[in-house]
Amino acid sequence: MKTVAFVLYPGITPLDLVGPLQVMSVLAFFDPSYEVVVAAETLQPLQTDTPLRLAPSHTFDQLDRPYAVIVPGGNGPTFAAMADDGLLERIRAAAATAEVVGSVCTGSLLLAAAGLLQGRRATSHWAALHLLAKLGAVPVGERVVHDGPYVTAAGVAAGIDMALHLVGRLAGEETARQVQLMIEYDPQPPHGPIDWAAVDRAAYAPLITDTLSAALSDHPRLLERLTR
Amino acid sequence: MKTVAFVLYPGITPLDLVGPLQVMSVLAFFDPSYEVVVAAETLQPLQTDTPLRLAPSHTFDQLDRPYAVIVPGGNGPTFAAMADDGLLERIRAAAATAEVVGSVCTGSLLLAAAGLLQGRRATSHWAALHLLAKLGAVPVGERVVHDGPYVTAAGVAAGIDMALHLVGRLAGEETARQVQLMIEYDPQPPHGPIDWAAVDRAAYAPLITDTLSAALSDHPRLLERLTR
Repeated sequence: MKTVAFVLYPGITPLDLVGPLQVMSVLAFFDPSYEVVVAAETLQPLQTDTPLRLAPSHTFDQLDRPYAVIVPGGNGPTFAAMADDGLLERIRAAAATAEVVGSVCTGSLLLAAAGLLQGRRATSHWAALHLLAKLGAVPVGERVVHDGPYVTAAGVAAGIDMALHLVGRLAGEETARQVQLMIEYDPQPPHGPIDWAAVDRAAYAPLITDTLSAALSDHPRLLERLTR
Repeated sequence: MKTVAFVLYPGITPLDLVGPLQVMSVLAFFDPSYEVVVAAETLQPLQTDTPLRLAPSHTFDQLDRPYAVIVPGGNGPTFAAMADDGLLERIRAAAATAEVVGSVCTGSLLLAAAGLLQGRRATSHWAALHLLAKLGAVPVGERVVHDGPYVTAAGVAAGIDMALHLVGRLAGEETARQVQLMIEYDPQPPHGPIDWAAVDRAAYAPLITDTLSAALSDHPRLLERLTR
């Protein structure tokens, strides 16, 4: 049995987790050699950045050598988690024996803060991408980035694309297409794709710095490393 | 304050709920005249069709004249919910004063079973679309279908497109584009869009019939209405 473990912690962006969770759960339906679990410190429901609370299926202690580990991201709470040594140790421990270590959105900052992305190419939410370099990774502005066992996705919704990439790699393109059909992932953004040329990235930088400063006010050295 | 209420019940497909929930939560961040809630019978975490459990922010009794109501779908548990008079009454009550009544995936079957889609154009998951006609609605094979206050989305991932449509309608295209940017919804399905010409819909019909039969074994009249 190959276990695909999603890491849950307080305050995440739920779509970061649920997009790839739904994809991998359909893979497990088609191929029972995979099982999907959601792991957190305890089994209690956790707040997210929406009014929905999420409760895991397993505690971290119950995780047994997962085949794949996927870390979702979020806003301030994820920035704060970069200084949560307990969570980072859980991520390192789960990743140690995993053949696939993935992230969605700012989840890659946690992989990097855990020391797992040294010199690795990786991506993140577009507004936080530059922070990866401060943590030793090589930021790449692509939607899904593979480097060795690591597969990182851009912001939030990119986790669905990342998981379908992963299904293609693990089970072949035909199965990936079947999963895509089951979740009817045939996107039609009503206003078209993102017009990147019109995005004023500099305008968002103060928002990121403010959120970082609030999240890491008790960790001035990490904050300085990320913002200098 | 305009309340956007998501309806939570046991066994749903979590991406049906979390896709549009994330979109509408970003709308509420940009425009504080909106608030988002997730409502269920009690505040306890509920199982989904994945290992993740979901817990609401409100009970149905705490819902106060929501501006919008959105009903997610699922597999067998949603089919079974078509016979859950208590849930259907909750949906009718919430919808009665709402200006927008939405669904994702087979959530439209619940709107139809609640008697809300009589003669209305609506969509659903591609494999369940034909069932809408048995419940008095007019099935339309499009990704997002508007008819009066009703806005229905096709399967699972279509809820994201539906919610961005809704944001465009409620707050304008510029805000919808900003929300899209925040959740980095710039889809790149790794194997391209769904190739509908290659989908053998008839091959999936027995699966739907089997799931319906198991879910509605105690409700033979409804089962017959849906399968005759």
